[in-house]
Amino acid sequence: KIGEAQVMAESGIDDILIAYPIVGEDKISRLLNLRKWVRKVACTVDSLQGARALSEAALSAELPPREPLDVYIEVDVGFKRVGLPAGKDVVDFALGIQDLKGIRIRGILTHAGHAASSETPEQLLSIARSEAQAMVMTAGMLRENGIHIDEVSIGSTPTSYVLDSFEGITEIRPGTYVFNDSDLLSLGVVSLNDCALSVLASVVSRPSHDRVVFDAGSKTLSSDKQANCKIPGYGVIKGCPDIWIERLSEEHAIARVQPNATAKWNAAAGRKTADRIPEIGEKVQIVPNHACPVVNLFDRFIVTKNDTVIAEWRVQGRGRLA
Amino acid sequence: KIGEAQVMAESGIDDILIAYPIVGEDKISRLLNLRKWVRKVACTVDSLQGARALSEAALSAELPPREPLDVYIEVDVGFKRVGLPAGKDVVDFALGIQDLKGIRIRGILTHAGHAASSETPEQLLSIARSEAQAMVMTAGMLRENGIHIDEVSIGSTPTSYVLDSFEGITEIRPGTYVFNDSDLLSLGVVSLNDCALSVLASVVSRPSHDRVVFDAGSKTLSSDKQANCKIPGYGVIKGCPDIWIERLSEEHAIARVQPNATAKWNAAAGRKTADRIPEIGEKVQIVPNHACPVVNLFDRFIVTKNDTVIAEWRVQGRGRLA
Repeated sequence: KIGEAQVMAESGIDDILIAYPIVGEDKISRLLNLRKWVRKVACTVDSLQGARALSEAALSAELPPREPLDVYIEVDVGFKRVGLPAGKDVVDFALGIQDLKGIRIRGILTHAGHAASSETPEQLLSIARSEAQAMVMTAGMLRENGIHIDEVSIGSTPTSYVLDSFEGITEIRPGTYVFNDSDLLSLGVVSLNDCALSVLASVVSRPSHDRVVFDAGSKTLSSDKQANCKIPGYGVIKGCPDIWIERLSEEHAIARVQPNATAKWNAAAGRKTADRIPEIGEKVQIVPNHACPVVNLFDRFIVTKNDTVIAEWRVQGRGRLA
Repeated sequence: KIGEAQVMAESGIDDILIAYPIVGEDKISRLLNLRKWVRKVACTVDSLQGARALSEAALSAELPPREPLDVYIEVDVGFKRVGLPAGKDVVDFALGIQDLKGIRIRGILTHAGHAASSETPEQLLSIARSEAQAMVMTAGMLRENGIHIDEVSIGSTPTSYVLDSFEGITEIRPGTYVFNDSDLLSLGVVSLNDCALSVLASVVSRPSHDRVVFDAGSKTLSSDKQANCKIPGYGVIKGCPDIWIERLSEEHAIARVQPNATAKWNAAAGRKTADRIPEIGEKVQIVPNHACPVVNLFDRFIVTKNDTVIAEWRVQGRGRLA
């Protein structure tokens, strides 16, 4: 979103792709303001209304002469979120907007978010390949129709771990890979040791022999849970293979005690794991299912190296929802 | 949590119950610091370890003489989160901690969170009644055993709407009622017009005839979804009975077009609802499933009266997770 792009711009980043359709007068105006002081800013389009509104606003804004706003056409390769179906639909759309003044088609872009729900490694690889192929094919069709395309941009962390050919692709946009998380652990593309983000939580109650309650909840771990996730519950508790977080309230993570509940995922860390249940007051590290919304819930990161705190970083983009 | 209590204290509230077990040296120390400048501060206990740690810290802190820290014993009436089972377990626990110096048993407290998943109005009323009865019974047993109890505190917004007798109860702690939300709509205890919190979102894409995408997602609506919720999806879109939010990404709400998808809940608002699908750029108000985590995702409320903006309020307690 534009608020996050503003944070990047203020930090000196001067080539920013907002992989989002910017719609509405207010947002377009903010985008064009940003465009005035940042060397390169682009956004996505997937509708004629959206492209026309950007075009009109860019024309009436005081952009430098002969400097149109760059847009990427968003392509749907199977996630069924935003974007036009790969192939002919994209070509027709591109032909329809190529003469609009004020904007310039810079490339095509997609996000194979459906890879995150893959049930097998084969399915994941298949989605990764078909994403790349659909994009390369669409780029070829656009060029055959005389439309200049600089960028062919694909996305998603899971696919970026397994894709075996990047021929014809100019850009990949994995995001979660910065930290990794239990969703990626579940897909088998990372081990627990590859997960850099965890939530530090304390046991606050052990009301029965099979229940452990931590001072974390949907306000710290988020309720995000991938369809088909092979790990039970809301995050993996490091070093505690025998418990899993069965339910979340806003402020409570209610864990169930069950032998070897997450042992497989803990074993993947290559460490000997404890077989005990943490006591009241004991602290544990919980690797969340989905790192992205968790980062957005906190104001600061505590940065450690070899178990020593070396820094605190502000989450500057937090809450920049528009 | 203590961070939220600090916000209240700074705003002048001088009688604060933190309905949470305060565990760990750091948190207890912060609690006792708060206790020094706020007239009344209490927290909950449900473990001997927790009570002993509070007692020891309170004794070594410089609290005013003869001013112990008030604690509520947390009772479980069926939610199976924290708390001791109502009745004999609570009495045994109270007898075990009553001689600890530095703390004083002020009352008992419970939260019937399981009411939120009620499948019928009868089940909801039954949970509300059994919560109150279990607490009154437990208070009676404590008093018979010579333990002084000032407060008998029950909770949860759904039960507070239906409970028909408060005999023996000194305090109720509904929270969501401040705004109401689609979860309560689903339970049949409020109408859409009773829901005061909504997220303003714009259509950013309409990639197919049966799909509408809004610029809201798990970072604005949260992924919270009550078990047994009778409303499909992630929030009710005001005035749009024919669409429902089928999936969320962090920044996208992907809605499915389906005739009368949420018509029943919209009709409950007593308004004639539109039967059209919003266009790209059009704004809608989405009443979220669960108001609590949604408030925590925003920095500000925009306050309206008769559709006119009259104020902006800061969400001062946001992100006070510890």
